[in-house]
Amino acid sequence: MRQPAHGGNLAWAAALAGCPPDAILDFSASISPLGPPNSAIAAILSQIGNLKHYPDPNYSELRLALSHFHQLPPEWILPGNGSAELLTLIGRELAQLAATILITPAFGDYYRTLKAYNANVLEFPLSLVLSEAVGAASRREVLVTGHWSLVIGHLSLTKDKGLLLNNPHNPTGKLFSRDSILPYLEQFALVVVDEAFMDFVLPNEEQSLISVVQEYRNLVVLRSLTKFYSLPGLRLGYAIAHPDCLAKWQLWRDPWPVNTLAVAAAIAALQDTEFQQQTWAWLPPARNQLFQGLAEIPGLQPQISAANFLLIESQQSTSQLQQQLLKHHQILIRDCLSFKELGDRFFRVAVRSHSDNQRLLTALKES
Amino acid sequence: MRQPAHGGNLAWAAALAGCPPDAILDFSASISPLGPPNSAIAAILSQIGNLKHYPDPNYSELRLALSHFHQLPPEWILPGNGSAELLTLIGRELAQLAATILITPAFGDYYRTLKAYNANVLEFPLSLVLSEAVGAASRREVLVTGHWSLVIGHLSLTKDKGLLLNNPHNPTGKLFSRDSILPYLEQFALVVVDEAFMDFVLPNEEQSLISVVQEYRNLVVLRSLTKFYSLPGLRLGYAIAHPDCLAKWQLWRDPWPVNTLAVAAAIAALQDTEFQQQTWAWLPPARNQLFQGLAEIPGLQPQISAANFLLIESQQSTSQLQQQLLKHHQILIRDCLSFKELGDRFFRVAVRSHSDNQRLLTALKES
Repeated sequence: MRQPAHGGNLAWAAALAGCPPDAILDFSASISPLGPPNSAIAAILSQIGNLKHYPDPNYSELRLALSHFHQLPPEWILPGNGSAELLTLIGRELAQLAATILITPAFGDYYRTLKAYNANVLEFPLSLVLSEAVGAASRREVLVTGHWSLVIGHLSLTKDKGLLLNNPHNPTGKLFSRDSILPYLEQFALVVVDEAFMDFVLPNEEQSLISVVQEYRNLVVLRSLTKFYSLPGLRLGYAIAHPDCLAKWQLWRDPWPVNTLAVAAAIAALQDTEFQQQTWAWLPPARNQLFQGLAEIPGLQPQISAANFLLIESQQSTSQLQQQLLKHHQILIRDCLSFKELGDRFFRVAVRSHSDNQRLLTALKES
Repeated sequence: MRQPAHGGNLAWAAALAGCPPDAILDFSASISPLGPPNSAIAAILSQIGNLKHYPDPNYSELRLALSHFHQLPPEWILPGNGSAELLTLIGRELAQLAATILITPAFGDYYRTLKAYNANVLEFPLSLVLSEAVGAASRREVLVTGHWSLVIGHLSLTKDKGLLLNNPHNPTGKLFSRDSILPYLEQFALVVVDEAFMDFVLPNEEQSLISVVQEYRNLVVLRSLTKFYSLPGLRLGYAIAHPDCLAKWQLWRDPWPVNTLAVAAAIAALQDTEFQQQTWAWLPPARNQLFQGLAEIPGLQPQISAANFLLIESQQSTSQLQQQLLKHHQILIRDCLSFKELGDRFFRVAVRSHSDNQRLLTALKES
């Protein structure tokens, strides 16, 4: 079995660890440990009797639920079979432009979708973005608010290019401020912001562009419901963009991309404010615990993150470390080999429960 | 709400009938009334705890189950989010050819996927196909075996074109013999046979091309698990073709197209030989009952079908008939407006249980 390019491949990990997939403690996939919410499971169970019917191809109920959640008209929202499916459609759109700029290290699936349609890719390293963005004064600000500024220079920003970035950024966990992204909407033909992890940011700190999407015809926001609500096996994401854009993409794909159970789970989860509050109460202290514990281990240097994962620089080979943790502790961490700028000296871990985080820290100390 | 182009849109029908979607007796979607099998439901329930994990991107277990079922190596099989998702990938492949030939009336989704990639379409009417194919002698054979011959003439069959057909044919239900399709594999650059309804044909009568797929690099067979096993809400189909072809398509789409519950249901359903036997025992007599009942109603002329649906020619407007049946009987039939050659004088109905079929016949007699 070849090594997975993405986190969460438990079949591969279990084979290496010599245990059933269930026994793996998975830090590689950046999925909330709190879910799925009971409300979503109940909704799934209630709809099993409806599997004998096709899903509503308009996804009217789901769009309405998302419409209420984001205070946007339903026609600005397009549900998908995970945000990965929508990313594929967006790849086709981006390929029609002269080039697409990726902030690197970039999520491997961005290269996949751009390559699928032979798009031109221009890479722009995050370190350069940050060193330009953060002067002495704003560096202090970063420490206070946790927001970074997106500054892209050194490129002729004619209006024939696209920009594809995630916010918070994966794998670093850095959160770009909304205000620092806005100017690029004037400079790029299309700006795609993948906010797969934005719902983990506390409501009073989030920097989503959804609030301004109706002001820009060239803005696309991608969201996922599978990470925050722990349902990656069910596949559910959505795109928010101008209705003309969404109507065009709808013609590029099959009529029923989202399954009936994912629809039901999504509608229930969006209304589950109690689960949302629990998540926001859990994440900051759990992330802090994990960050502090990692920082105390010699040879490891975690990076400050606004998301539910941490990127860690390591003095030893992380692919060796990954194998050791699997074989001796049945713990799976995410190597960063698919992020070519990072290579073998970085790994990524999800923030999990207090006890799971402690188990990881103990195992790392022994490795 | 706009009228659906495809069967099974219960939200639209319920609005028109003034009843909840559950109350609609749906003859429009060609789904087996026997399922879903209990084995598939049990498998779905057993996997709900695994929704917090990503699906295995290799879909190894599912491919292995399909491999056993079809006696083919797993790398010849590509699962998809319903066969409609795979059809979209195939549309991209077909668009690279000079043209694609459709046997008309053709399933509306074929036009959709070919248009999505700006493919050239050449239409070839089924009536012409059949009048050429069936001479006096073979016409007798048709009555005995129910197999039709596919004969496409009048076109320069250089090897730069593709052929996309379904077998059994939708909406007529005609079954082309395997032997009559084989010669076209020598004449077309790519032959795609959508066998979405082939599993309804008794094993000793089926005409699938799966048995010869390893002999032709330019053959693609599409299968669905949602019609025979009554799981259209779950989304599951698969393509069978040369591994090089499948590997290329895999790069055109997202890494996790099939959800975890669909994987589990499929594996269980494929092993459920009891359910398969029940289906084959139910269909021929139920179809015969419905056919005879329809033939006895003045103004209606059903066509002989090898599938789990019947196409009926009507002397009155079928869109009016559809509305009457919905409003007065909460019964939904499939108009054929999306098959442009058929228009308002044809409708399609699924074969259902004896009592449901009787309810339809009674309602039609009153209309």
